[in-house]
Amino acid sequence: MSESDFNDLPAHVWPRNACRQEDGVVTIAGVPLPEIVEEYGTPVFVVDEDDFRSRCQDMARAFGGPEHVHYASKAFLTRTIARWVDEEGLSLDVASRNELEIALRADFPADRITAHGNNKGDGFLRACVTNGVGHVVLDSEQELVDLDTIAAAEGRVQKVMIRVKPGIEAHTHEFIATSHEDQKFGFSLASGSAFRAAEAAVRAENLELVGLHCHVGSQVFDARGFTAAADRVLSLYSRIHAELSVQLPELDLGGGYGIAYTEDEQPLNVDKVAHDLLTAVAKTAAELGIEAPAVLVEPGRAIAGPGTVTVYEVGTVKDVTVSEDEQRRYLSVDGGMSDNIRPALYGSLYDARVVSRFTEGAEVSSRLVGSHCESGDILIRDAAFPDDIVPGDHIALAATGAYAYAMSSRYNAVNRPAVVTVRAGKSKLMLRRETVEDFLALEG
Amino acid sequence: MSESDFNDLPAHVWPRNACRQEDGVVTIAGVPLPEIVEEYGTPVFVVDEDDFRSRCQDMARAFGGPEHVHYASKAFLTRTIARWVDEEGLSLDVASRNELEIALRADFPADRITAHGNNKGDGFLRACVTNGVGHVVLDSEQELVDLDTIAAAEGRVQKVMIRVKPGIEAHTHEFIATSHEDQKFGFSLASGSAFRAAEAAVRAENLELVGLHCHVGSQVFDARGFTAAADRVLSLYSRIHAELSVQLPELDLGGGYGIAYTEDEQPLNVDKVAHDLLTAVAKTAAELGIEAPAVLVEPGRAIAGPGTVTVYEVGTVKDVTVSEDEQRRYLSVDGGMSDNIRPALYGSLYDARVVSRFTEGAEVSSRLVGSHCESGDILIRDAAFPDDIVPGDHIALAATGAYAYAMSSRYNAVNRPAVVTVRAGKSKLMLRRETVEDFLALEG
Repeated sequence: MSESDFNDLPAHVWPRNACRQEDGVVTIAGVPLPEIVEEYGTPVFVVDEDDFRSRCQDMARAFGGPEHVHYASKAFLTRTIARWVDEEGLSLDVASRNELEIALRADFPADRITAHGNNKGDGFLRACVTNGVGHVVLDSEQELVDLDTIAAAEGRVQKVMIRVKPGIEAHTHEFIATSHEDQKFGFSLASGSAFRAAEAAVRAENLELVGLHCHVGSQVFDARGFTAAADRVLSLYSRIHAELSVQLPELDLGGGYGIAYTEDEQPLNVDKVAHDLLTAVAKTAAELGIEAPAVLVEPGRAIAGPGTVTVYEVGTVKDVTVSEDEQRRYLSVDGGMSDNIRPALYGSLYDARVVSRFTEGAEVSSRLVGSHCESGDILIRDAAFPDDIVPGDHIALAATGAYAYAMSSRYNAVNRPAVVTVRAGKSKLMLRRETVEDFLALEG
Repeated sequence: MSESDFNDLPAHVWPRNACRQEDGVVTIAGVPLPEIVEEYGTPVFVVDEDDFRSRCQDMARAFGGPEHVHYASKAFLTRTIARWVDEEGLSLDVASRNELEIALRADFPADRITAHGNNKGDGFLRACVTNGVGHVVLDSEQELVDLDTIAAAEGRVQKVMIRVKPGIEAHTHEFIATSHEDQKFGFSLASGSAFRAAEAAVRAENLELVGLHCHVGSQVFDARGFTAAADRVLSLYSRIHAELSVQLPELDLGGGYGIAYTEDEQPLNVDKVAHDLLTAVAKTAAELGIEAPAVLVEPGRAIAGPGTVTVYEVGTVKDVTVSEDEQRRYLSVDGGMSDNIRPALYGSLYDARVVSRFTEGAEVSSRLVGSHCESGDILIRDAAFPDDIVPGDHIALAATGAYAYAMSSRYNAVNRPAVVTVRAGKSKLMLRRETVEDFLALEG
């Protein structure tokens, strides 16, 4: 990386409305990040609202309309987010009773909600039925029976899908066609248990089977894993049609749409993958002599991830002699594994830049670490930073909108950061910063 | 594991006051776990108060008095825990401003508190000085200067230690004598930066250097790593004595005292390790011709870990064909990576048992998983469970007192569990279960 590059904000990694001003300050949607720091403190998540909405629109366009796209709320959910998703016309996936509750509190239309989970439990299933949740994705025989019973008691017919393990596992640019049976989710296609579940759902008086669901992986960058899975699952549509005389109208191919976390990654090309996938589904359905089901997808990260940054303040700067011929600079910031567990949990990489000014230093081998009392509290293990970063500078990590706040903890009793949305030159608090009082309140 | 063993509660893993009654129900301190489930719901952490206190006492006895033992609050801290530690006469380590705040709110005597952290920041340092915190462990040159300035402004002299990297890394029964320079904490012994920091601290007008600190690792099971580190650090005591004419009265050797998470592990023998360590320190000091400093230690996990269990309710039970000749039973419980990230984060192992009744089944290859919408949400990857576990059974994981609740998240918008203490046949709520309202309150 040449020295001038430290001031770049790679457009495929940073929020769509991020830019560095002539004075070196980074703005998002016209709001200078130092102003946000001044008003809300650090660490702080900054969400580019138009970025989030535009990715909803991109997905909707690519997949033939917003009704084909379910936002996976596990990536990040607040009532505000649920309202944005609703306004963009997308549907919503929830994977817990509380995620459902948050969506309902935002007046998200229940019939556009799909409920997931390997162990939903009676309370969640009942809440789905009584609130009129659009789809419940069934994950076990036991759940099928329980849901049928609950629906009967409520005098309703619940639309359901069956979660199928297609035996395909997709990662980045590869997929494995002989794996992924050994997981907690779904019914096996190969063993016939998926067909038996479909048959049971068709026969259940209070369930209406509308389709099959599968999910092939995370951070997938091309269509092949999805189409390979769709091919296999469509064979089950064909069998269900032949043996049960049921034409299932929908096929949910789950999420996993990859985003770029670092400059040298490229995000999945949504238009191309959607085109390839829809073409493949139509072709396979035609070959099987069945009507092509409507394809549904469930992006979470691909919608919520890229539009958010986390801004930290640099605290201590320490040079460490790693070996005779190697030095490393440790830059500590005022957050860490509590607000972003992904580097520690998954070895995830991030792009970080000084956002409060231009930097002019030469490259120095660096490590960006948090403030927790744990040596594994590392945000970026191998970072190339300019050597002029000093305490008080502000650094932002890009693409932190998914699975960062959502998985945040209070390790070392820290306060969860504030989450601020920006749009058209204005900032607005979405989630206030926690205080020690929030923690103490639990102790009564 | 023979079939009858499923009903055992290995004493070196489970709380000291856990036992299985004649009716098969497990009690802790005389309180049946099903009663706790009935009253507080699941998942629930159950803390054996006498176990916690007895381990404080064990450590105090082994190391020559409670004043030698600092409880590392990062393992788990509430005001109740701080009061127990105070009543047992131990000192307390804090690693953030909020941990300090919680301790002070419990009226923990500030002069028995030690402050840690690689990036404490101005606010935390100032809070230490103004509240009269006993020791601040200095971690960088910058912090040394800042703390001196703050102490001057407050008209106080702050007692400090220097955190030293001794170049020793200890893991379980091994230690590596040529590593661990490449980390965010401390000053290097080898490079001379630790001596220079000590010299600066001695010369600083508003700081009083009382000792050096080092920490060699986690889950250590014998004394050799500690004594090797102590040997090296004592050489610096000798140099400080010779060149700065200062006799440092204290030596803090940190934490890392290993506990047993599974039946085939054995916890560190505290008495033996303490004896070996104190003997070695006395011997080395004599050889160096210096007075032996008082040895301080900082157990967190070894005090908080073994006395707590997490009780879950079994939801779905699913048999999966892994390969032609391998089946695996997936048991889903109503918690998971949100209340215990350690298996996913560190690959940690746990011992789990049915606690609501006797089990009589034959062994079946099992995996204990949580309810989160993530395939990596696994509590025990390879578990041997009896095959008679059914939905509604209650399973407890043992030794979850350290770094489980402390690192808990709200992933999938779940509620953090309740934490209940038990003693002499009575239960008491320590931390109430979170509700969705707690989450919604942040959004205003």
